[in-house]
Amino acid sequence: MSSKFDKIIDYAVRKGFFWQSYEIYGGQAGFYDLGPLGVLLKSNIVDLWREFFVKQHQDFVVEIESPIIAPAIVFKASGHEESFTDYAVECLQCHRTFRADHLVEERLGVSAEGLGAEQLEKLIKENDIRCPICGGNLGSVYRFLLLFQTYIGPYSPSNLAYLRPEAAQGMFVNFKRVYELMKRRLPFGVAQIGRVARNEISPRQGLIRLREFTIMEIEFFYDDSNPSCDVIYENCSEEHINILRAEDRAEGIDKPTPVSVTEAVNEKIILSPWLAYWMCIAKKFVNVLGVPSDKMYFEEKLPSERAHYSKQTFDQIVVVEKWGKLEVSGHAYRHTYDLGRHMEFSKAELYAIRQLKTPKVIRRSIVKYDKNAVINFFGSKAPQVFKVLASLSSEALAKMVTESQGDRVVIEGIEIPKAIFKVEDVEEKVWVEKIIPHVAEPSFGAERLLYVVLEYAYSEDGGRVVMRFPRRVAPIKVGVTPLVDRDPLEEIAHRLFKELKKYYYAMYLEGDSIGKKYAQADELGIPFVITIDYETPSKGDVTIRDRDTKKQIRVPIADLVKVIDAGLRGVDILSLGYPIIE
Amino acid sequence: MSSKFDKIIDYAVRKGFFWQSYEIYGGQAGFYDLGPLGVLLKSNIVDLWREFFVKQHQDFVVEIESPIIAPAIVFKASGHEESFTDYAVECLQCHRTFRADHLVEERLGVSAEGLGAEQLEKLIKENDIRCPICGGNLGSVYRFLLLFQTYIGPYSPSNLAYLRPEAAQGMFVNFKRVYELMKRRLPFGVAQIGRVARNEISPRQGLIRLREFTIMEIEFFYDDSNPSCDVIYENCSEEHINILRAEDRAEGIDKPTPVSVTEAVNEKIILSPWLAYWMCIAKKFVNVLGVPSDKMYFEEKLPSERAHYSKQTFDQIVVVEKWGKLEVSGHAYRHTYDLGRHMEFSKAELYAIRQLKTPKVIRRSIVKYDKNAVINFFGSKAPQVFKVLASLSSEALAKMVTESQGDRVVIEGIEIPKAIFKVEDVEEKVWVEKIIPHVAEPSFGAERLLYVVLEYAYSEDGGRVVMRFPRRVAPIKVGVTPLVDRDPLEEIAHRLFKELKKYYYAMYLEGDSIGKKYAQADELGIPFVITIDYETPSKGDVTIRDRDTKKQIRVPIADLVKVIDAGLRGVDILSLGYPIIE
Repeated sequence: MSSKFDKIIDYAVRKGFFWQSYEIYGGQAGFYDLGPLGVLLKSNIVDLWREFFVKQHQDFVVEIESPIIAPAIVFKASGHEESFTDYAVECLQCHRTFRADHLVEERLGVSAEGLGAEQLEKLIKENDIRCPICGGNLGSVYRFLLLFQTYIGPYSPSNLAYLRPEAAQGMFVNFKRVYELMKRRLPFGVAQIGRVARNEISPRQGLIRLREFTIMEIEFFYDDSNPSCDVIYENCSEEHINILRAEDRAEGIDKPTPVSVTEAVNEKIILSPWLAYWMCIAKKFVNVLGVPSDKMYFEEKLPSERAHYSKQTFDQIVVVEKWGKLEVSGHAYRHTYDLGRHMEFSKAELYAIRQLKTPKVIRRSIVKYDKNAVINFFGSKAPQVFKVLASLSSEALAKMVTESQGDRVVIEGIEIPKAIFKVEDVEEKVWVEKIIPHVAEPSFGAERLLYVVLEYAYSEDGGRVVMRFPRRVAPIKVGVTPLVDRDPLEEIAHRLFKELKKYYYAMYLEGDSIGKKYAQADELGIPFVITIDYETPSKGDVTIRDRDTKKQIRVPIADLVKVIDAGLRGVDILSLGYPIIE
Repeated sequence: MSSKFDKIIDYAVRKGFFWQSYEIYGGQAGFYDLGPLGVLLKSNIVDLWREFFVKQHQDFVVEIESPIIAPAIVFKASGHEESFTDYAVECLQCHRTFRADHLVEERLGVSAEGLGAEQLEKLIKENDIRCPICGGNLGSVYRFLLLFQTYIGPYSPSNLAYLRPEAAQGMFVNFKRVYELMKRRLPFGVAQIGRVARNEISPRQGLIRLREFTIMEIEFFYDDSNPSCDVIYENCSEEHINILRAEDRAEGIDKPTPVSVTEAVNEKIILSPWLAYWMCIAKKFVNVLGVPSDKMYFEEKLPSERAHYSKQTFDQIVVVEKWGKLEVSGHAYRHTYDLGRHMEFSKAELYAIRQLKTPKVIRRSIVKYDKNAVINFFGSKAPQVFKVLASLSSEALAKMVTESQGDRVVIEGIEIPKAIFKVEDVEEKVWVEKIIPHVAEPSFGAERLLYVVLEYAYSEDGGRVVMRFPRRVAPIKVGVTPLVDRDPLEEIAHRLFKELKKYYYAMYLEGDSIGKKYAQADELGIPFVITIDYETPSKGDVTIRDRDTKKQIRVPIADLVKVIDAGLRGVDILSLGYPIIE
């Protein structure tokens, strides 16, 4: 057990951050439970995401919640039913199923990205690749749909439904509703945090490749000809991000280059300004989770690697010990793809209105007709003719009259003299036009971030584990303990603990010695430990130990919440003017 | 549109609290989206639940997270595959499916609770009940499984899986893990907040009967012979809850009676002290959501109404305008049912260790044998005999020797003289015993609580809607507006809004007049509105208007966050010593 990864997994399972689901039934690959500390950590990560992406942008980003189960039509329209597949191959002997591309990559050490079924099958046959479990022969390579299937109501083809593999479609099908709520103003973003499910083929990477996980996503809608992305100058003009471009990757370059965010937009390195903006926020967010800027970059996907809906995609990569790199978020320029498809499949109008600065002049032909002439010509049949004429738009009628040969036009079997009609060309000024908004999407996986936070917090100090969680995300904020387990110190400690747990997730530390108690707190990454010592009963003050400096300050009990709150906001508690005990 | 219910639904959809899912595809019954205000409101309700049920009990209640998808064995063991069904009937003409019991209840005005398939079918036939949509004849009544089905991995019977209809099983299958993390101390609770799915037959009650919703649940494990429920005296000794007992209901009584919580335990009205404790917390929690005590009660379910796993169940009922009553939580005494079943199906040991105060004396017979006698008697066959003897437990061997006739005993075909064995009775002192913990479960539906909060917050003031949300759950906390939309007031308002949205969900109010802006804020239930007026630029202070009293105080800008924080904690801001403007 030498690798950092093994140590972290061992630590996380032992301390109850996470473990494989359904262990008593032999475990289920691709499913993980979060234990008590895991839930606290994840919930802090999710809250921080919400703060960075929603709350700080609340005047133009709102959060919604839509179901996990969707009728099949939604994922037919989105293109997932057709494209959200992987290549699978079954062992003819033990009937286990594997990802064909992964088998090829593992056995031949080459990239199988972009290869089709036939190519993969050819490689498997030619290289005699066999079942990695039982050594049996492998069958044909086929496309496996990664959507979990179910039925809403009784089993019947018309009731077919899927579990969503992304939250995004919930935002697209609700575009119109939220557009109205936003008073028809572009740009705006719709965020969602929730569970998604992907029926991955034989997932084997623990918490990293899950069949069910929590996604945090924004679909950001804007007018491509007027993105109104001023916040990029306000919040990101000083920011640089590391980018590894697709064109460089195609040439074998694997080192990212730092680029200023605004330059990346101006130079068209990033095709959508809003994609760039959210990448900048993503970088800041992952920084706050404990990952330094030089340990992350954005990798542009090659066209063959991109999802079917994307015109440009960047993966946010964090350097990790086990795999070298780990994708923690994806940034896709979904342009008009999804809204366009839902319009096609639902017939609903999912347009936004663009106000024009100068009116657009539209020329069209309209037709007028002489009512008296109709009555004179058709007599008692006239009402029927009026009805037919009224059922047609002026443009359609003009077209029929103009295009018909001879001096008559036949409409619904009725011959009408052209002389009755007068076709006119008119000009109209239009101040608005309908547009399909463009979409930029930042999308995060909460469980991968949880792993990254653990890896970057993990440290050892003389053989002991010290989890240096950023204070904001530390699962437990405060430890409370008496210097010795005796009254009145113990009684005061219990009383203080009872008071503090109203404010924080806290822990009453038990142990043989104060040193062991601090070690226990460090192992759980608790930022502050409050010790009740011999001076406490007479003076009414306690010590607060800072996890990272190991220094302590002496604070009146009445000030505790104020000091801890400041500490959790990032203030150095040693700077607050309380006596420092070295 | 006269009923309060219709007004609330109209309000909620109009303001974007919720709407039916997949509207652009015609809508899907039983599925609802939450819009921006709905997400904020729900998230505040969930946070408040977490505070009442988890955070304030954090030394013995922890939260975990388990997947929505579970292999079929989990719900086979839990009894859901067999019992989680409703009676369905299909229209032979239009092929729509209905709940047979609901049709009977609606058409005959009687309760169909507890009736079986044959009885329901008989009632349908005898009373010529037809399809409520097309009038067609109805087919046979059958049991419909309410679990959504899917497959983990490729389609194959062994890969069958279900979506969980309750979070509970995630806690039961993880009992051992959490028990170890809790240092093997009973009692403790495991909480979970997450999505569940129930394939309801033709649900028609909007947000009230959903096919997918958010559940908030605790499985509380305790030793039945030593519940250690001291907190009931600490937190609930003064509390009364209204109870409508099953035995009273059976006699036609429908008026609940107030009972003290501790008395309900002592008089065995509530069979489990921990069930009673969480019912008391549930009452306090729903109070804080805005429902007064006299508008809620706990209805004990009749044996025929209880789920298969429950020995006693109380539904927490809130009085609502539309249906008279609405179940917002269920409190089930699941005793040892679930852990017992999972032990049976998984063969895992899901026991807790009970420390005994006085040791239990166990008498048992053991057997000794003379090795030399075996060698002398069996010669070269002796090793084989030793092997057979070693494969048996001492107790089993003693039993065979004692019970066999004659002077020989035959073991695995080998005849052995009894004289070789010596049977002894021994006494052993045992200080621990294995027990299956009992379980009390409080379980809440977040969306129903959301509806209840809306109904109890809804009020009208001179024809205008005023949402009197408790401040803690109000979706938007603060409004900001200039007295007139002109600089410098407007510029200061924008600056303040930008600052305040770092702390709160806030809204910049736009409108023709200050009166209309306040009306707009009241309609959204915003507790506090900050107005920048003509005195602000020179004096650096603003007014804060309280939604409920309509009174204002004048506060320096530097004090704003402090005052609003206090107000949101429940402090009357008029009592803070700032000048009050009537």
